[in-house]
Amino acid sequence: MTITPPELSVFESLESEVRSYCRGWPAVFDRAQGSRMHDEDGHTYLDFFSGAGALNYGHNNPVLKRALLDYLERDGITHGLDMSTTAKRAFLSTFQDVILRPRNLDYKVMFPGPTGTNAVEAALKLARKVKGRESIISFTNAFHGMSLGSLAVTGNAFKRAGAGIPLVHGTPMPFDHYLDGRVPDFLWFERLLEDQGSGLNQPAAVIVETIQGEGGINVARPEWLRGLADLCRRRDMLLIVDDIQMGCGRTGPFFSFEEAGIVPDIVTLSKSIGGYGLPMSLTLFKPELDLWEPGEHNGTFRGNNPAFVTATAALDAYWADGQMEKQTIARGEQVEAALCEIVSEHPASGAEFRGRGLVWGLQFADKERAAKVCARAFELGLLLETSGPESEVVKLLPALTISPEELDEGLRIIARAVRETA
Amino acid sequence: MTITPPELSVFESLESEVRSYCRGWPAVFDRAQGSRMHDEDGHTYLDFFSGAGALNYGHNNPVLKRALLDYLERDGITHGLDMSTTAKRAFLSTFQDVILRPRNLDYKVMFPGPTGTNAVEAALKLARKVKGRESIISFTNAFHGMSLGSLAVTGNAFKRAGAGIPLVHGTPMPFDHYLDGRVPDFLWFERLLEDQGSGLNQPAAVIVETIQGEGGINVARPEWLRGLADLCRRRDMLLIVDDIQMGCGRTGPFFSFEEAGIVPDIVTLSKSIGGYGLPMSLTLFKPELDLWEPGEHNGTFRGNNPAFVTATAALDAYWADGQMEKQTIARGEQVEAALCEIVSEHPASGAEFRGRGLVWGLQFADKERAAKVCARAFELGLLLETSGPESEVVKLLPALTISPEELDEGLRIIARAVRETA
Amino acid sequence: MTITPPELSVFESLESEVRSYCRGWPAVFDRAQGSRMHDEDGHTYLDFFSGAGALNYGHNNPVLKRALLDYLERDGITHGLDMSTTAKRAFLSTFQDVILRPRNLDYKVMFPGPTGTNAVEAALKLARKVKGRESIISFTNAFHGMSLGSLAVTGNAFKRAGAGIPLVHGTPMPFDHYLDGRVPDFLWFERLLEDQGSGLNQPAAVIVETIQGEGGINVARPEWLRGLADLCRRRDMLLIVDDIQMGCGRTGPFFSFEEAGIVPDIVTLSKSIGGYGLPMSLTLFKPELDLWEPGEHNGTFRGNNPAFVTATAALDAYWADGQMEKQTIARGEQVEAALCEIVSEHPASGAEFRGRGLVWGLQFADKERAAKVCARAFELGLLLETSGPESEVVKLLPALTISPEELDEGLRIIARAVRETA
Amino acid sequence: MTITPPELSVFESLESEVRSYCRGWPAVFDRAQGSRMHDEDGHTYLDFFSGAGALNYGHNNPVLKRALLDYLERDGITHGLDMSTTAKRAFLSTFQDVILRPRNLDYKVMFPGPTGTNAVEAALKLARKVKGRESIISFTNAFHGMSLGSLAVTGNAFKRAGAGIPLVHGTPMPFDHYLDGRVPDFLWFERLLEDQGSGLNQPAAVIVETIQGEGGINVARPEWLRGLADLCRRRDMLLIVDDIQMGCGRTGPFFSFEEAGIVPDIVTLSKSIGGYGLPMSLTLFKPELDLWEPGEHNGTFRGNNPAFVTATAALDAYWADGQMEKQTIARGEQVEAALCEIVSEHPASGAEFRGRGLVWGLQFADKERAAKVCARAFELGLLLETSGPESEVVKLLPALTISPEELDEGLRIIARAVRETA
Repeated sequence: MTITPPELSVFESLESEVRSYCRGWPAVFDRAQGSRMHDEDGHTYLDFFSGAGALNYGHNNPVLKRALLDYLERDGITHGLDMSTTAKRAFLSTFQDVILRPRNLDYKVMFPGPTGTNAVEAALKLARKVKGRESIISFTNAFHGMSLGSLAVTGNAFKRAGAGIPLVHGTPMPFDHYLDGRVPDFLWFERLLEDQGSGLNQPAAVIVETIQGEGGINVARPEWLRGLADLCRRRDMLLIVDDIQMGCGRTGPFFSFEEAGIVPDIVTLSKSIGGYGLPMSLTLFKPELDLWEPGEHNGTFRGNNPAFVTATAALDAYWADGQMEKQTIARGEQVEAALCEIVSEHPASGAEFRGRGLVWGLQFADKERAAKVCARAFELGLLLETSGPESEVVKLLPALTISPEELDEGLRIIARAVRETA
Repeated sequence: MTITPPELSVFESLESEVRSYCRGWPAVFDRAQGSRMHDEDGHTYLDFFSGAGALNYGHNNPVLKRALLDYLERDGITHGLDMSTTAKRAFLSTFQDVILRPRNLDYKVMFPGPTGTNAVEAALKLARKVKGRESIISFTNAFHGMSLGSLAVTGNAFKRAGAGIPLVHGTPMPFDHYLDGRVPDFLWFERLLEDQGSGLNQPAAVIVETIQGEGGINVARPEWLRGLADLCRRRDMLLIVDDIQMGCGRTGPFFSFEEAGIVPDIVTLSKSIGGYGLPMSLTLFKPELDLWEPGEHNGTFRGNNPAFVTATAALDAYWADGQMEKQTIARGEQVEAALCEIVSEHPASGAEFRGRGLVWGLQFADKERAAKVCARAFELGLLLETSGPESEVVKLLPALTISPEELDEGLRIIARAVRETA
Repeated sequence: MTITPPELSVFESLESEVRSYCRGWPAVFDRAQGSRMHDEDGHTYLDFFSGAGALNYGHNNPVLKRALLDYLERDGITHGLDMSTTAKRAFLSTFQDVILRPRNLDYKVMFPGPTGTNAVEAALKLARKVKGRESIISFTNAFHGMSLGSLAVTGNAFKRAGAGIPLVHGTPMPFDHYLDGRVPDFLWFERLLEDQGSGLNQPAAVIVETIQGEGGINVARPEWLRGLADLCRRRDMLLIVDDIQMGCGRTGPFFSFEEAGIVPDIVTLSKSIGGYGLPMSLTLFKPELDLWEPGEHNGTFRGNNPAFVTATAALDAYWADGQMEKQTIARGEQVEAALCEIVSEHPASGAEFRGRGLVWGLQFADKERAAKVCARAFELGLLLETSGPESEVVKLLPALTISPEELDEGLRIIARAVRETA
Repeated sequence: MTITPPELSVFESLESEVRSYCRGWPAVFDRAQGSRMHDEDGHTYLDFFSGAGALNYGHNNPVLKRALLDYLERDGITHGLDMSTTAKRAFLSTFQDVILRPRNLDYKVMFPGPTGTNAVEAALKLARKVKGRESIISFTNAFHGMSLGSLAVTGNAFKRAGAGIPLVHGTPMPFDHYLDGRVPDFLWFERLLEDQGSGLNQPAAVIVETIQGEGGINVARPEWLRGLADLCRRRDMLLIVDDIQMGCGRTGPFFSFEEAGIVPDIVTLSKSIGGYGLPMSLTLFKPELDLWEPGEHNGTFRGNNPAFVTATAALDAYWADGQMEKQTIARGEQVEAALCEIVSEHPASGAEFRGRGLVWGLQFADKERAAKVCARAFELGLLLETSGPESEVVKLLPALTISPEELDEGLRIIARAVRETA
């Protein structure tokens, strides 16, 4: 699509080699609205990536934009550390009224810093403090963040190696479906816990994603999640659900664990909680776990007030009733049908798909196919990333606010990209 | 000043006990402009705190505000991960032209995530990767952040205890003045390094603040910093300057290490780099250290484009010439004169002060006096925090854009608060 | 049996509370010969414990005793660090000729210090050095020693807790039969290794006992051991067999892994290698792994020359031909028949037994039964210890030199003790 | 001296490259008596090395030998784990009567395994358990052993590197004289402890040698040891004296800390405690620290009964009165005079010496001189090793039972070796 190559020289000469997405998408983006991004050369892209889940309400959502501009115009507090502000109060009240109370969730709210890894670090600290133990159980192909605490419970060997120190105090357990159904759920985990000779350090907590977004769109069954919650309860471990990518409606309900009917002890939220793509995160926990001393965890940007404003507006606009959840499930069915068709069209490709709500993965027997599909999709004007330890899964993550027509457009591009990479 | 107590119930019932600043400042802040914050009850406060250093250009600085509103109005990219955007390019080019090139600094720029601790984690990872060693040297009373990697090189015992695991791979060395001048600089450190029997794990890097902002406004002499840089060079350790609080002009020059004439291997910036109090951070390093693999470190909010916009505007507005540096030094002399007078008025208090540019600390023989001074200042309409391991230092951190009159007003409140807490 | 209580006051008042065996056997032992121990009050005990495997040739074996007395009489070197001595040379040559060469084993011999945990520490150090990785795989219910390196790969939670620091750098995997045959061998282990997202730190080595002596007389099948050896080879991990308790003929052949036909990369020996119960241990490894620098590992008593003398005498006396192996297997069949009878006599007890050569375990549905059987056996003049994480297994470990009559005598006592504890 | 080269082939081909002493002393030793060792080729060596301190009573001391032979002849218990035996009782009673009671030392006695590193591991475990903290303070150039717990508090970088994992949970402090008298004792250590922002993990204990034998014969002044004991008391840290090399009379009194008048909380003994060079070690601690659970620490050879026999005989023979202490001090004066003369004869060599009792070090400005002196001494029939992180110190460690004539003979060889290596 691009004819003249984009002007990338300053990125290439000045920015670190660590940059990644920009390598697969050689364009310089300038504007965006809803599910469309525009580069400076006038090209438009349909976005099935949504800021890795940070843009569930689309780019520059007009409802949130209005609230944000008003707030900035009137010189509302921008930076507030953990000072009490009217913006924070509005957020807390709305979160309480719109999210927690209707779901009978009695959580304390912590602002641990504005990014997902801050929320995970705070969750792990709190679990260790409450239980007086160091060890955390994580799952194969988990992704929880890049700072050392979060990285230690992340599965990806390449990212782990970046730590430069041995990552310890964590033990991986098999995620749902990991051993291909040949082993009863939690057989190994429970044996380790019950056996005083197993060599497993007694865990403070288990941290889990209900669907592993970075790990390959691995979907845990509700009964598996219930089994895990039950195991945690029986074996005196806290259950942490990292809902950073799958929360905020990505799978349908506001929290991805609602479908399973479980109530985690600790929940992390980030990415789309701010609504507008502004950095914000939350760590939620049961009141009896709130053993923090004042200031025991802090962070300069933990009170990112503009994000409180857009977060509040998003909750008010999208979660005051059950419409968003229904719509997401409907859109998910649209995706599912299309993926089903793609798979059935390519029986020799060994393609499989899986997902829920508006997060889906498409995988081929040839592990390199996913990257080719994404590359071709880009040429065709669709932003689509891969997932999984070997980037072997095409990951569909459209905005929850995408229209059926846009969704259809993107799915058709995927179908074409699959055909053209056969 | 407050007559009717502020409405804090939702904070008290819903927000975690971890909150801290809001306890000392029982007000609900609503708006702010320049060096003034306004609570919802109509009270106004002069701000000598500046978002813990994140608001060097004052609250809602009109120049930056204009750029930000324009960007948001025109639907510029808000959330961009590490995609190339026009906003990021503008920032990179401006940072290159206004900051790096005039100072002959040849650094690669990494966006490690939007908070200070992200920048420190990335710096430590890179140092360990480059040198193939785990150990990092930090200094007494250092503060580098709350995620596990950063916390391990932070001095504060209370915050360290929050980790819930033993913090290892770091060894503290005495910061400048720590041993009261009785010991030659680096005597101990160098002996440990040169002695093959010392038991010190060979360090990958040294991480240092030029002035310890959280640790008690401890000011390293330029010659001490030069000695440290020389030691690092001679002993094959990378020198990391954490300039998160002291950079962006806080001490006068853009980088706080400029006065010492040293060129660190790695530099971290955050807090005021975004200009407007929006989350943003940078890790800078010499090009030969850029051994990152693509995506080896990442983070959802590492491309916070609104912050790129305000950051660019701030660099253009304040750093294109040498005015800001001169002005900060002049303001600093104003503070120094006032503190000198306060100290000489209270000879029995054992008061001392220290600082540079617009960061100053005032300490009394009675360690509890600082908290009293800050509490009284709040009643008198001045926001002022304490610093140091026992909160024993009054910390002055006004905006760099404060007017001489506002500065004088605040200094007079401090003088009065000191008198009234005698 | 004991009428006047033994005089234990000095032990009780002066020796640490850490003492354990002596609590179950309240006698003061004075002399011993073969499979008989005598206390100072004139009682005689049949020994089915054999110094926890250190006395495979019985107490004060006359052949070894003669060699030892001669050596001491003639003022042979007693303490030699790693100096070359005639006693060490005799041992090395004999070990080469009698043990290694006939088995086609090409191992270098290291004297890592005289105890089992020294041998394990050296094995782990070497594996980590050779592979440049920290992580070690151990198995559920493994026992490898009490110093921190060995303890980290030991399963017992009570003993691990004694470390006082988190034990890391190790991950437990299921030993053979651990998951009751419901899971294919190494399914989980191999998946973790092959999956770049599993979160398992890439191991340097696997350490395994062929039969877990302390862990409950858990017997690995030869095919399981072969599968493990194959996995190690395919996945670039060193295989360490800890043969401290099961080597030196305990299971029949000199090395317990011979039956499986595998050749470990590293082997640890201790306990009975000295023959006479004198402290001695060996770490054996393939020549290409001998990357030690001179003195990189050392230890004051690594050259315990009297033990070299008795070790040499034992090898000469018992291993020059295949008699010992045959005899042990025959004795084992005698034990097996007796245990079979005991079990069939007590169908309601849920008793099971397992073992090989002259190491056997007897377990009951009631986990406390084992301790009762051992206590009753002591009253009946038989020394017998328990094993397993909850001391739930009666462990039979008679000397390899025991006569069929003595063996029968002990087995009859066990049968009686079982009956009398029903 | 050697004319035909010794037959070393089996050592060279079969024994690991880790061997060290034997490289400097290319002889095959066969017999020894008192301070003389004899190789198989008929050469005799005077021993100023004493098994690295394990042979304080000389080789095959006839008094101990008689007791040992009698015990073995009468089939006394050889291997006893922690069973009560008459030999152990005799040792405990004698240790109580001859050593502890006369010195007013109220210690519980633990048999942690027969080697020094076992004793240190047990001491560190106990300290961590009692205090509930992980961190241990050690000193520059400390040596405590080769298993991972002990190695983490050992200074030597080469030996530390052998661990293959990062050695953490320990922090080195300057040993006495380390900073050349320019810094008040414990200035740095105490500041770290008193400052809540220092970054030092609160230590459970301090482990120290009164004279660092491996670290270069570094002698702590009694007042420094008293200062350390006082610091430990004031700052709630346990004081562990590792007396493995310097105890058992090496410096004159039985415990090397007696001269300083301090009473450590925990003491480790090994090397010469068994008397005859047989593996044995003790961990002693104040009764209120005896929080061990039965079996929480164990070890197969912790009841090495032949060593109890020789240990008892040694205590009876040498420590029932004060003669040994006086004699050692007298012999030490003989050494001191000789070293003084050597040093004064070689003013240009920059030679220095230091020591106490019968442990002395001789150092030259040229760090490689020590190895040359030892090599020449070997040619002249004297066994002498080096010490220090760069093997820069000639270490004199004759048996305490050496005659004045033998001592003089050895000292003359040293003087000659110094002359001939000038």
